[in-house]
Amino acid sequence: MPVDPSAALGAEFEPAKASWGAKDVILYALGLGVGVGADPNDPAVLRYTYENGLKVIPTFGVIPTFSALGNLGAAPGIDINPMMILHGEQYLEITADELPVEASTVTNAKIKGVYDKGKGALIVIETRTSTDSGEELFVNEFGVFARGDGGFGGESGPPAGNEPPDRDPDLSVETPTMPNQAHIYRLSGDYNPLHIDPEFAKMAGFDRPILHGLCTFGNVGRAVIDGLLEGDTSRFRSIKVRFAAPVTPGETVVTDMWKESDSDVIVRARVKEREVEVIKNARVTIR
Amino acid sequence: MPVDPSAALGAEFEPAKASWGAKDVILYALGLGVGVGADPNDPAVLRYTYENGLKVIPTFGVIPTFSALGNLGAAPGIDINPMMILHGEQYLEITADELPVEASTVTNAKIKGVYDKGKGALIVIETRTSTDSGEELFVNEFGVFARGDGGFGGESGPPAGNEPPDRDPDLSVETPTMPNQAHIYRLSGDYNPLHIDPEFAKMAGFDRPILHGLCTFGNVGRAVIDGLLEGDTSRFRSIKVRFAAPVTPGETVVTDMWKESDSDVIVRARVKEREVEVIKNARVTIR
Repeated sequence: MPVDPSAALGAEFEPAKASWGAKDVILYALGLGVGVGADPNDPAVLRYTYENGLKVIPTFGVIPTFSALGNLGAAPGIDINPMMILHGEQYLEITADELPVEASTVTNAKIKGVYDKGKGALIVIETRTSTDSGEELFVNEFGVFARGDGGFGGESGPPAGNEPPDRDPDLSVETPTMPNQAHIYRLSGDYNPLHIDPEFAKMAGFDRPILHGLCTFGNVGRAVIDGLLEGDTSRFRSIKVRFAAPVTPGETVVTDMWKESDSDVIVRARVKEREVEVIKNARVTIR
Repeated sequence: MPVDPSAALGAEFEPAKASWGAKDVILYALGLGVGVGADPNDPAVLRYTYENGLKVIPTFGVIPTFSALGNLGAAPGIDINPMMILHGEQYLEITADELPVEASTVTNAKIKGVYDKGKGALIVIETRTSTDSGEELFVNEFGVFARGDGGFGGESGPPAGNEPPDRDPDLSVETPTMPNQAHIYRLSGDYNPLHIDPEFAKMAGFDRPILHGLCTFGNVGRAVIDGLLEGDTSRFRSIKVRFAAPVTPGETVVTDMWKESDSDVIVRARVKEREVEVIKNARVTIR
């Protein structure tokens, strides 16, 4: 059996160390496309790209956890084809007050959920990341969708929720990307050839390389911070998204936001050029 | 006296270690603007940005030498205002067959020339870079122009030479850059705020931050390789340029080339939008 929930659930991964500094934080921001289609001297560009007054875009919290996920194929009860993996869902919560520009961390990861989605299996990996001195910084849940590995008869999981209300968005923010956006983003650590190799992308079932889902994820978070929070990264608490369709590098992502309360924003993202939803069932919480 | 040639000439700097790998090589290429205004799946983009078959753009040879220049202000006979420094000239010769994707190196640097240019002093620093196992990879000459520090009565130096012949270029290649190009390029190691900080740029006498001269230098080298050498980086031997005027990030650089012989190409670069010469008296030699 390719996926065996009884064996997989609760399985822990080897703790993974990571460290970062201003250069990594800036490279991540440029990987999202900060400064594309913008005045490079704008404070909304400089605060994420210049070490003088640098702020960490909170969605950077997915990056130092990446190496902790490397062993998914070796986990008990998980026998899946790496070529068929897609990023299905992502949750990130900043548990510290704010992300530091420099840190050394350790990430503990375990399999938190295994769901039978029919066409595939959804495997949810929880990661918790703390500084070397023991302060927890953030918690992630990576939802990995293994195409073709469903039908094993497991639970289908909770409903996605976070549907937008039946009215126009309170705010929509456009985020252009560059044709070479994935080339830049991948230097933050996700070197999956799906995002740069035309032949590999075709083998994986795509016309051309697709942008990293977590790049769009970061741009949605940034749209909320810049659009609703006046750039105050410390007010960003959590983000939960479902990835609905890939973005092609060079397209413009439009983030629609509906304020549900002082602390909750329902979010959706779509590609401007094709009017295709790329992120849905999404929520950002603020403080 | 701010500049004293008799004390400065021959002064050696502390040897500086450096090391690099595929990520650094790719970041440098993206800092030049590889992939801007291009199909991201084009082999001319992928060969410089994808670790599978990666080629090092030879002008990367200026990067690992950078830390060797840090002590210019502390050199004997050199008392100049860092705010007034501009990059005047650059020579780079690849003495190895080709630059490796990974290496650990040591760079030895010394002051090779000090010239009185009237409005400023031109200080030429020679650097020689070898691998830890002793193979020399490349030699640089950095020509640093210290505005306001001329008039000390020294030699004015050799004429620039390398004037284009009186005919149309044999080939012209356009290289677009992004408004955030300097933000990306600086991550390769030149964090001079002149290239990102609007206030600092004004204090240094510019309307806005300017693109690194060495970014344009790299794009001129790349234009020759892609335009004349079919992307064969191993045929690039040397490049000598004089920086004539700054490029504003976002502008398109046009490299004009005149083939003098099988081994020599006279080169000039200009900004398409303003028809201003930005690199002149320039020569590339090939093998």
